[in-house]
Amino acid sequence: MANITKKVSWSSRGDESGAAGEETPLLNGSEQSRPLRQMSSGSTVFQIGRLSTVDLEEEITTEEQDSARGRPKEIPHNEKLLSLKFESLDYDNIENQLFLEEERRMSFMAFRCLEISRWVICGLIGFLTGLIACFIDIMVEQLAGLKYRLIKENIVKFTEAGGLSISLLLWAALNSFCVMFGAIIVAFFEPIAAGSGIPQIKCFLNGVKIPRVVRLKTLVVKVVGVIFSVVGGLAVGKEGPMIHSGAVLAAGVSQGRSTSLKKDFKIFEYFRRDTEKRDFVSAGAAAGVSAAFGAPVGGVLFSLEEGASFWNQMLTWRIFFASMISTFTLNFFLSIYENKPGDLSNPGLINFGRFESEAMEYNLYEIPLFIAMGAIGGGLGAFFNFLNYWLTIFRIRYVHRPCLQVIEAMLVAAVNATVAFILIYFSTDCQPLGPDQSEEYPLQLFCADGEFNAMATTFFNTPEKSVRSLFHNPTGTYNSLTLGLFTVTYFFLACWTYGLAVSAGVFIPSLLIGAAWGRLCGILLASTTSTASMWADPGKYALIGAAAQLGGIVRMTLSLTVIMMEATGNVTYGLPIMLVLMTAKIVGDYFQEGLYDLHIKLGSVPFLHGEAPATSHWLTAREVMSSPVTCLNRIEKVGTIVDTLSNTSTNHNGFPVVVQVSGDDEPAKLCGLILRSQLIVLLKHKVFVELARSRLTQRKLQLKDFRDAYPRFPPIQSIHVSQDERECMMDLTEFMNPTPYTVPQDTSLPRVFKLFRALGLRHLVVVDDDNRVVGLVTRKDLARYHVGKHGLEELLLAQT
Amino acid sequence: MANITKKVSWSSRGDESGAAGEETPLLNGSEQSRPLRQMSSGSTVFQIGRLSTVDLEEEITTEEQDSARGRPKEIPHNEKLLSLKFESLDYDNIENQLFLEEERRMSFMAFRCLEISRWVICGLIGFLTGLIACFIDIMVEQLAGLKYRLIKENIVKFTEAGGLSISLLLWAALNSFCVMFGAIIVAFFEPIAAGSGIPQIKCFLNGVKIPRVVRLKTLVVKVVGVIFSVVGGLAVGKEGPMIHSGAVLAAGVSQGRSTSLKKDFKIFEYFRRDTEKRDFVSAGAAAGVSAAFGAPVGGVLFSLEEGASFWNQMLTWRIFFASMISTFTLNFFLSIYENKPGDLSNPGLINFGRFESEAMEYNLYEIPLFIAMGAIGGGLGAFFNFLNYWLTIFRIRYVHRPCLQVIEAMLVAAVNATVAFILIYFSTDCQPLGPDQSEEYPLQLFCADGEFNAMATTFFNTPEKSVRSLFHNPTGTYNSLTLGLFTVTYFFLACWTYGLAVSAGVFIPSLLIGAAWGRLCGILLASTTSTASMWADPGKYALIGAAAQLGGIVRMTLSLTVIMMEATGNVTYGLPIMLVLMTAKIVGDYFQEGLYDLHIKLGSVPFLHGEAPATSHWLTAREVMSSPVTCLNRIEKVGTIVDTLSNTSTNHNGFPVVVQVSGDDEPAKLCGLILRSQLIVLLKHKVFVELARSRLTQRKLQLKDFRDAYPRFPPIQSIHVSQDERECMMDLTEFMNPTPYTVPQDTSLPRVFKLFRALGLRHLVVVDDDNRVVGLVTRKDLARYHVGKHGLEELLLAQT
Repeated sequence: MANITKKVSWSSRGDESGAAGEETPLLNGSEQSRPLRQMSSGSTVFQIGRLSTVDLEEEITTEEQDSARGRPKEIPHNEKLLSLKFESLDYDNIENQLFLEEERRMSFMAFRCLEISRWVICGLIGFLTGLIACFIDIMVEQLAGLKYRLIKENIVKFTEAGGLSISLLLWAALNSFCVMFGAIIVAFFEPIAAGSGIPQIKCFLNGVKIPRVVRLKTLVVKVVGVIFSVVGGLAVGKEGPMIHSGAVLAAGVSQGRSTSLKKDFKIFEYFRRDTEKRDFVSAGAAAGVSAAFGAPVGGVLFSLEEGASFWNQMLTWRIFFASMISTFTLNFFLSIYENKPGDLSNPGLINFGRFESEAMEYNLYEIPLFIAMGAIGGGLGAFFNFLNYWLTIFRIRYVHRPCLQVIEAMLVAAVNATVAFILIYFSTDCQPLGPDQSEEYPLQLFCADGEFNAMATTFFNTPEKSVRSLFHNPTGTYNSLTLGLFTVTYFFLACWTYGLAVSAGVFIPSLLIGAAWGRLCGILLASTTSTASMWADPGKYALIGAAAQLGGIVRMTLSLTVIMMEATGNVTYGLPIMLVLMTAKIVGDYFQEGLYDLHIKLGSVPFLHGEAPATSHWLTAREVMSSPVTCLNRIEKVGTIVDTLSNTSTNHNGFPVVVQVSGDDEPAKLCGLILRSQLIVLLKHKVFVELARSRLTQRKLQLKDFRDAYPRFPPIQSIHVSQDERECMMDLTEFMNPTPYTVPQDTSLPRVFKLFRALGLRHLVVVDDDNRVVGLVTRKDLARYHVGKHGLEELLLAQT
Repeated sequence: MANITKKVSWSSRGDESGAAGEETPLLNGSEQSRPLRQMSSGSTVFQIGRLSTVDLEEEITTEEQDSARGRPKEIPHNEKLLSLKFESLDYDNIENQLFLEEERRMSFMAFRCLEISRWVICGLIGFLTGLIACFIDIMVEQLAGLKYRLIKENIVKFTEAGGLSISLLLWAALNSFCVMFGAIIVAFFEPIAAGSGIPQIKCFLNGVKIPRVVRLKTLVVKVVGVIFSVVGGLAVGKEGPMIHSGAVLAAGVSQGRSTSLKKDFKIFEYFRRDTEKRDFVSAGAAAGVSAAFGAPVGGVLFSLEEGASFWNQMLTWRIFFASMISTFTLNFFLSIYENKPGDLSNPGLINFGRFESEAMEYNLYEIPLFIAMGAIGGGLGAFFNFLNYWLTIFRIRYVHRPCLQVIEAMLVAAVNATVAFILIYFSTDCQPLGPDQSEEYPLQLFCADGEFNAMATTFFNTPEKSVRSLFHNPTGTYNSLTLGLFTVTYFFLACWTYGLAVSAGVFIPSLLIGAAWGRLCGILLASTTSTASMWADPGKYALIGAAAQLGGIVRMTLSLTVIMMEATGNVTYGLPIMLVLMTAKIVGDYFQEGLYDLHIKLGSVPFLHGEAPATSHWLTAREVMSSPVTCLNRIEKVGTIVDTLSNTSTNHNGFPVVVQVSGDDEPAKLCGLILRSQLIVLLKHKVFVELARSRLTQRKLQLKDFRDAYPRFPPIQSIHVSQDERECMMDLTEFMNPTPYTVPQDTSLPRVFKLFRALGLRHLVVVDDDNRVVGLVTRKDLARYHVGKHGLEELLLAQT
């Protein structure tokens, strides 16, 4: 694959001064390339090379981002690339003296109070997520209703008089206008709010700090953006963004303050660290899933699947609580909105409706059919991802200016309306209006009185309602041609839409495509034999098709099965859905990765999978680690510290602290680990020991100082250290983590991986037999290895 | 609490030669007691004392058990005791040279084949578990039907003629006979099969090796036993034992051989180690839950809640697959049995029926009522546990001979029948026979024609059907007196029954008690105001009561909520059920532990909870670890090894391997860890280096030799080592794990705990700054600490 320039859409905003095709060959990772041992299985192994930097990043802070905005950051895009600009979250507590002293001071009651406040926060997260879901739902329904009624009246007016092109124009203009607004706020104000946010949340829960992903501004843009995208008639859903919204809410509520609003409530200060924050973000993501699909258990499993490294029973129980409160809140407020208070029939934003009739029962001999549909879904999903992959590459190259992005979004909206209009116009599939009036906006067009255009039910509606129609409308509501045409057009529209600079999800379009071809399968089956028409209920096949298509695109496993089970409210469908999702995943994985993983890879994010690659036993910590490591002495000169931190070529984030035991000739032994962020706080508060004076002058720093600075630590450049101060010493004993996790050099990669992943580490020190530091393993050192077509492959590390 | 003698019911069989009251004061743990640092919070801390032994156990093997059978093993019972006789499972792979070489030889395809065989095994586990559930269900239904028809005919015959006492005698005799059979096989053949098996499986999944718990014989006794207990009319359920059955099946199937049947299929040899076996046992337990309650997701969560330390996505997905297959198999075969093939309406052994009618909807203002019921359930549950605790103590002391156990079980069965008969006899609650004939064995007794005795529907039926009746029978089916009397009598009967030497579960009796008083609450509520009668559907309150009571007794959280949700098939009930279970747990925990935890504690099992006690930050590895540690040299004299292994006073299981680096004066450094079981295999295969000859004589041992010996390694006593051989050397380099996990001495207990629990370790080496071994942390060292009434307390370690 050719190296093409990639705009880092996740972390830097669009900027107009950047030329599109400017290729900067920053692949300076070819140094230090060294031969690797060949595997005995004979598969070829190649190593492109690597940098010796440890945990380099840019953009730690807003200030830095601002200063960098002058030129667009572009990294040479290559699938085999891992960006060094992403910081890691630290799921391991920094158990330094300050922390231990605080913990030891705390009584049992204090711990109990903390536990109670965790529950309160989770309840709040669930409640607020439910409210936001409710807000989105009501806004979309109102605005979309307004739009469709307007267009419908217009169409009715012009059907007889002729001149339907005016209706088309109106439709396209309304769509474009809505989408324009949605795209502008995303492209110009907060590009990270684009898309569903699921890849970003996956990364966050995996332990990668994606800049600005859990900020209040992102939430606002996300929520407003998704309303306008859905109302704008794009092939998108409002479910994915809920997960992101829940996560942002959780990050905000749990910290008891908003840095954007400069408001500190002085509560929940204990939770101001990565460990606790990540736990709450899990709860928020789960609450989002729960509100989106009415699937509280699915939400918990989503969070666990994506985020959990270490299973914690109380945490899971709290996550479940947040999920429950979220779906209940949504349900309750929607029931009030619908004037049926207490009728809790809307547990989620999407509602599949009840699958309970006799015709919906499946037989054992249908299971092979389902599995075949799963294979089709996997194939189609892979094709979808393949197209979207190249489209994304194209966008990275040519459509990266905000104004271009807005124009593209408007174009898609207009094309959507046009295609829909043409299909509806030429459709001859007229269906009688049922007595139950399940269609909200039936379009008569050229049908006879008392009939409506079937194609219009799929296009002339919010996608959620179209899905329900495909699942539940009685046999014969759609003819095969309608469904076939709809599948093909919607497939390409949805594929084009995903990746636009709008806030929107891919779940519902996938379900809709799948439901359409699934229903088509059901109709075709029923027409083959007379017995098949007895059991081949089109609604049932629509459900299976939807599962297959969604599974083929996103490739989620357990959580998706449970989400689908909960959304259908029918446990007996569990097995077929599971088999379908498994088949779709196996078939899809054969061709192409899942959509989210693909976008994570395109972002060059160092994502850690659940297990080390299968054939990586022949690698050891010695080969994996970064070395040499910059170590600090336990009592270190301030000047050295400042210089180390300022060294932009080796922008390390964690420093092993060593101590000289006996004499200078003996090598120093590991005695702790300290983070860049801690050193910054120490420098900022001038915690120096002047050699001339007594040691007592070292200012007593408290945990509170670190918590106040969290999470936006200033860059080293903003801290002024005078020449006199440079000569002072700094005693790190109190602040360093005195018991970092270590591994010997001979530890195999899977073993290192397991320790790293299970404990959610950020730095793992590699020591020799004498406890001397020989290297440091960080996320990138592990994420580099993956199983490719030629056996175990290594990704290239690249500085931005 | 006084020290009372306790019979270790879990690990030693009943034996008649033991005198009942023989108290052996083996509390030799008072040595080495040392003052602990006081916590700054001022709570008093006391340490009773501890042994310096590391990982001592008896009964590693059948031979040892046999030899020990001569005298009954009794340990002085005390709540503050932790038995040293339990071995731990090793969830950490022994990554020695042999293992790494094998892994490195394997190609990517070989790993894929392994993965496929894991899936096949999980499918098999699910299928077989489903079949067993099906077998139990059909047998119980047939036999119970036979019994109830016989008694009913008899009662009808004697109702008019007088002489109902003969019916009572028949009933009591039939019950006693069935229970006698069930109790005999349990008490005489496999005492570990007594009870539900859930505490044992909890311990196994937690990492404690409970002897004989996953043997084929246990399975057979369990299955046959549960059929007879349920048919015998005891207040028990057949659900709990399913979990144990699933686990045994999993352990057997995954190993590809049966040691009991002396049959080795030579397949799945790769899975013959604790890590893999425990994963499959998780799947088996989940399949058991799934088959018992028709709750595949609940099953997965049960396994995770109880077993998982490290979240593994693929493993969870496989566990879910096993669960799905299990419930589907049960459903499918039951549908064939009921002559409605394809009608998948029996996903589990217990079926709550659908909760969907309008009356079943709950209102927001009912939630406080539900919470109040949760509190009642918690209180009643604690009372139940309290009674059962003392009953268990009584049994340990006086009812430990098998024949006494059988007599007690028969007595309970007869009392059951008598109490039921008396209540039915004196009941005046006559209800009209509905047109739907929902009662299978309606007893008319002294009611008018066309009516039946309501009390009989609760007692004269299998408990599963009684639960359904309480949930779904229309308002007015039971009067308050009937329900009140039933609750009280069944409460005490169920409490007496749990802990008998029969194979049976406590889930269904708990549900039944709760459903009865819950329905009573509903009726009382409905009678208070006229509006309340509109919404206070007794079936709804029966469900809430059932959840409250079950939650109050077993105190499970997430998994129980999901199990109840799946069993009711109604997502909207999720929130109230969750709130009820939370309340029941909080209230119950205030008084007394959960029933399973209580029995685990009574067994003195070193059970590791999810997190270290909250106030344990002031403890460090130095204080927690066992020391001094017996270390071995990398090249060690065979005689030393034999002596070390034979030392019964320090029956260690893991030995750090050390190496002298430079000169004898320098202390030895850690270079590996080796297990007793490995050394045994090495000794058995005479892997010695004779000093006189060349080193090449050392026999090459393969991984297969270790796998063949797994899991029943012979005791050291059975291995004969000649005097010449004692002088030989043994090179441990190839066999030891060269990279054991280590922690520095200053690591805080929570940090040690997290590492230990997250990775499922068995031995954690504590080293000093120079990488010299200073101590070893094992399961007992961590399980000792718990938060009691006086702050952090330490349990006493006791040799059996």
